[in-house]
Amino acid sequence: MKKLPYSYVFGAYPSLDLLKSRNSEVFKVVFNTKGQQSDGIAEVRELCKLHEIPNEVNDKLISKIAAKENTYVVTFFQKYETELSDENNHLVLHNPRNMGNLGTIIRTMLGFGVNDLAIVKPAADIFDPKVTRSSMGALFNIRFRYFDTFPEYLKKYPNHHKYLFMLDGGKAVNETIFDSPFSLVMGNESAGLPDDFRQLGESVYIPHSKSIDSLNLSVAAGIALYTATKLH
Amino acid sequence: MKKLPYSYVFGAYPSLDLLKSRNSEVFKVVFNTKGQQSDGIAEVRELCKLHEIPNEVNDKLISKIAAKENTYVVTFFQKYETELSDENNHLVLHNPRNMGNLGTIIRTMLGFGVNDLAIVKPAADIFDPKVTRSSMGALFNIRFRYFDTFPEYLKKYPNHHKYLFMLDGGKAVNETIFDSPFSLVMGNESAGLPDDFRQLGESVYIPHSKSIDSLNLSVAAGIALYTATKLH
Repeated sequence: MKKLPYSYVFGAYPSLDLLKSRNSEVFKVVFNTKGQQSDGIAEVRELCKLHEIPNEVNDKLISKIAAKENTYVVTFFQKYETELSDENNHLVLHNPRNMGNLGTIIRTMLGFGVNDLAIVKPAADIFDPKVTRSSMGALFNIRFRYFDTFPEYLKKYPNHHKYLFMLDGGKAVNETIFDSPFSLVMGNESAGLPDDFRQLGESVYIPHSKSIDSLNLSVAAGIALYTATKLH
Repeated sequence: MKKLPYSYVFGAYPSLDLLKSRNSEVFKVVFNTKGQQSDGIAEVRELCKLHEIPNEVNDKLISKIAAKENTYVVTFFQKYETELSDENNHLVLHNPRNMGNLGTIIRTMLGFGVNDLAIVKPAADIFDPKVTRSSMGALFNIRFRYFDTFPEYLKKYPNHHKYLFMLDGGKAVNETIFDSPFSLVMGNESAGLPDDFRQLGESVYIPHSKSIDSLNLSVAAGIALYTATKLH
């Protein structure tokens, strides 16, 4: 999947998100014979017509790639990247591996109005169907870009205030003032951030009991995004 | 799985959590011939000896039930329920279905010192290996109990202050004062809480943009637990 130049989403609602936000990337839509009357399918058909996107009915192709029964539509699209905003707040994920977490985090970003995601490699493929599924279509409504290294990101966005989330960070998240534009930087599920990232900005921790080693990454990102963006 | 009176956990660390917190429920530990020298296995052996728990080496049994290769130990235990605390704060999950979310939420509870979980049926089986895995062992360190209905829970804990999390709740979570002992009540992934729960306490919402329908349940529970328990 990672090496392919295209990917696909299953189902009417992810297809609609994609067709509404990124129709120029869509190159094919495949329906099955069942579900012609289903919710959303008529709207998918209309958007195909509007944007002149090739489409066909092909039950065999759908049953071959869809894990779930009753998949009524699969939408194929070219993978893409977008430029991040210079002025807006960013989330930076360092070496994210878990695709379910990645999709959940993207959905949370959109919920808290942080619409720019930097991903430092090595990392999961943002277009894997596991990510698009758990993002619930949010993926097609954010900007994101991969970076080979964290210094490459830093060089490109020197004016963002960097907040480095670490288990032994210097300041509790609820006592931190997040100056805009900010970059919330988080490590992956198993390793966290490298220790020497500490000096690159303000290191922050989410206070929790010693009964657990760490919070789940989606949960930690949710609390970080909520805290950094909410009106106190 | 749900109907069986027992369940099991895979791997050394979940086994250690179980043997340390709930050894009286463990009735069998099975090792494989590989991994005898692995981290944690020696400690599992010691605890088996200390608590006189039957154990054996059985590669066939392990390969039959373990999805992952390199599972060095499987620990079998009787399912159990515990009494919730009368004085402490509770989390109440109404009809939770997603087992990964359930485990993640249990881990988050322990992280924020809310150690009592009420689950209103119908609901996922808390002892499904998917829950124990995503709870990272936290499951064995909380108290929890199933209730047939929400009124049954209310009747048993009339003195807890109820906070009902609803998309259209009356008060923003960051403006809510959580009086102890509290019950944070959350619906499931697809349905939320029934609308008539609103009158049973204070209804609360987590402010988010209209770009998403709702937050992921684990993320919402994380923000609720963090906000209700943190020192402002």
